[in-house]
Amino acid sequence: MARVYLDHNATTPLRAEARDAMIAAMQVSGNPSSVHAEGRAAKAVIERARAQVATAFGADGADVVFVSGATEAAALACAGRGLFGAEIEHDAVRAWIDPVLGVDAAGQVAVTEPERSAVQLANSETGIVQGLPQGMAVIDATQAFGKLPVAFNWLGCEMALISAHKLGGPKGIGALVMKRGTDLAAQIRGGGQEMGRRSGTENVIGIAGFGAAAEAAARDLEDGVWDRIEKLRNILDSAIEADAKETIFVGKDVRRLPNTTCFATPGWKGETQVMQMDLAGFAISAGSACSSGKVKASAVLTAMGFDTATASSAIRVSLGPQTTEDDVIRFAETWRAKWEKHRARAA
Amino acid sequence: MARVYLDHNATTPLRAEARDAMIAAMQVSGNPSSVHAEGRAAKAVIERARAQVATAFGADGADVVFVSGATEAAALACAGRGLFGAEIEHDAVRAWIDPVLGVDAAGQVAVTEPERSAVQLANSETGIVQGLPQGMAVIDATQAFGKLPVAFNWLGCEMALISAHKLGGPKGIGALVMKRGTDLAAQIRGGGQEMGRRSGTENVIGIAGFGAAAEAAARDLEDGVWDRIEKLRNILDSAIEADAKETIFVGKDVRRLPNTTCFATPGWKGETQVMQMDLAGFAISAGSACSSGKVKASAVLTAMGFDTATASSAIRVSLGPQTTEDDVIRFAETWRAKWEKHRARAA
Repeated sequence: MARVYLDHNATTPLRAEARDAMIAAMQVSGNPSSVHAEGRAAKAVIERARAQVATAFGADGADVVFVSGATEAAALACAGRGLFGAEIEHDAVRAWIDPVLGVDAAGQVAVTEPERSAVQLANSETGIVQGLPQGMAVIDATQAFGKLPVAFNWLGCEMALISAHKLGGPKGIGALVMKRGTDLAAQIRGGGQEMGRRSGTENVIGIAGFGAAAEAAARDLEDGVWDRIEKLRNILDSAIEADAKETIFVGKDVRRLPNTTCFATPGWKGETQVMQMDLAGFAISAGSACSSGKVKASAVLTAMGFDTATASSAIRVSLGPQTTEDDVIRFAETWRAKWEKHRARAA
Repeated sequence: MARVYLDHNATTPLRAEARDAMIAAMQVSGNPSSVHAEGRAAKAVIERARAQVATAFGADGADVVFVSGATEAAALACAGRGLFGAEIEHDAVRAWIDPVLGVDAAGQVAVTEPERSAVQLANSETGIVQGLPQGMAVIDATQAFGKLPVAFNWLGCEMALISAHKLGGPKGIGALVMKRGTDLAAQIRGGGQEMGRRSGTENVIGIAGFGAAAEAAARDLEDGVWDRIEKLRNILDSAIEADAKETIFVGKDVRRLPNTTCFATPGWKGETQVMQMDLAGFAISAGSACSSGKVKASAVLTAMGFDTATASSAIRVSLGPQTTEDDVIRFAETWRAKWEKHRARAA
């Protein structure tokens, strides 16, 4: 039986539109910094994608600086600034912030000084969406962009981080989106590409894929694809809930990403669930992909007040545009069978 | 008539092997950090490419850290170390070094303390190859790798910078190659990818293309492709020399990259030559691509002792595996016709 991929918050399969744009860009041989026809053609690919990303992200009039991914964008936006954040931030932001901001049991971060704070709009692990004030220094929109109707120009922040591979683009390309006029010292220096903010010959093929994926993702949102995904996620939640009374759903009563569910089943380690479900043909995760394989309780859940045992028993299931009702029903059935076995063995 | 691309030091067309590997990698949907089957498949793509790059670059036993290109590798290797270098370094290295090392008229850098120095093995603009001592802190092998038989393990340096798009791989991927055990603080932090040296979800498609391109480039070298290219370069040099007695060839009497020629024709601006040849169907450059469009004399040539007028009149012609004898003969004929017109007008 075909495998079922339910780990879209870790990364997404490449969209057909991104694939086509990348294959087309493979024919463009020039260096975007070269002044000759081949160089200008490569530059045109980049500028077209920049416009696509800006439109999809509601960032007209802002600067879209292409970088190698949201992790690099985080370093560029946050390093050396002593910004405030919370323990629930993704490691890429967590690496640079002072994690002094409180997190309540519902996963909400208490932002006191927005202009000095960096917070993730939708949490990678729980999908919980923050109600963020205007004027934030940095918003990590990596998980929100493409799954929620979100626009840079509504967010009213100084900078935002986005990534292609979370919305059907290739891995290894992302952007730092900045209000025009924002000051920023380049970290990767040299040829002065990307308006002097980020040197290095541009990832033309990846950028083309990002642009096409962003455009397609925006269309999906308008077409109601994520409403359908949300219904499937709710079917999944209900099925799990019916089968496992012990299971705790994280953030179920607050605003979450439409595709994400995070639930803890005390007594059954998340990592074990991931492995067992993998063997049964389902890809899910315990915590974010980056920290996969590191056997420790989710820092996100412990910051929300869960004890270590509960936090260690959580898994994240994240759906995507290709997910079907059959996928989620089969997932729930398989998970229940494994859970019953585990419970019987543990008894 | 088809255009003739003679700007391979700026960037190269994608090799068929790289294209195929990238299209295959587009099917691999997982995040390399995920522990499930999809994640492991993505990890396997990266590790295969890492082995291909290590073998092609003679770096068995060294660490190959994938980054977004040689410019990022330069920042990672050089930033904050106060290394010595020369004025002729590429801007990506030049940004971080103290340019105190002397350069002679033949383009050779006088390295006094190798363990504190960063130097480019083959110069981007002139193709001149350095005779570097063992024990260098950093060798920028971006232009040499793929064009010369060069191996990290022979170079005897601490670190080396390499780039995929100079040898038929995609733009936006490169590597910092390090002697195992070398200490290095990550600049892009977060998930701890690339052995903790460089966080961020890996550019799986680009890495696959880099691996395939490096393998194909190494095969080309063994097959004598670059001997053929060198003959074509020499045919080009001779044709230009016969037609334009005023023209000065840079580095013609020292060891150069087999594909590169840089020549100055006083009284005819390099930028003008690039534009005129572009209109006539030939892609070449004046200086390195990154500094194209900036109208100033080449820092490489002025450091070698050329006056500003001469340095401003230089162009770089760089051949590749697809270049034919017809290409270079047509280039020389077209260039001569333009030069005669220019001279007549100037007279």
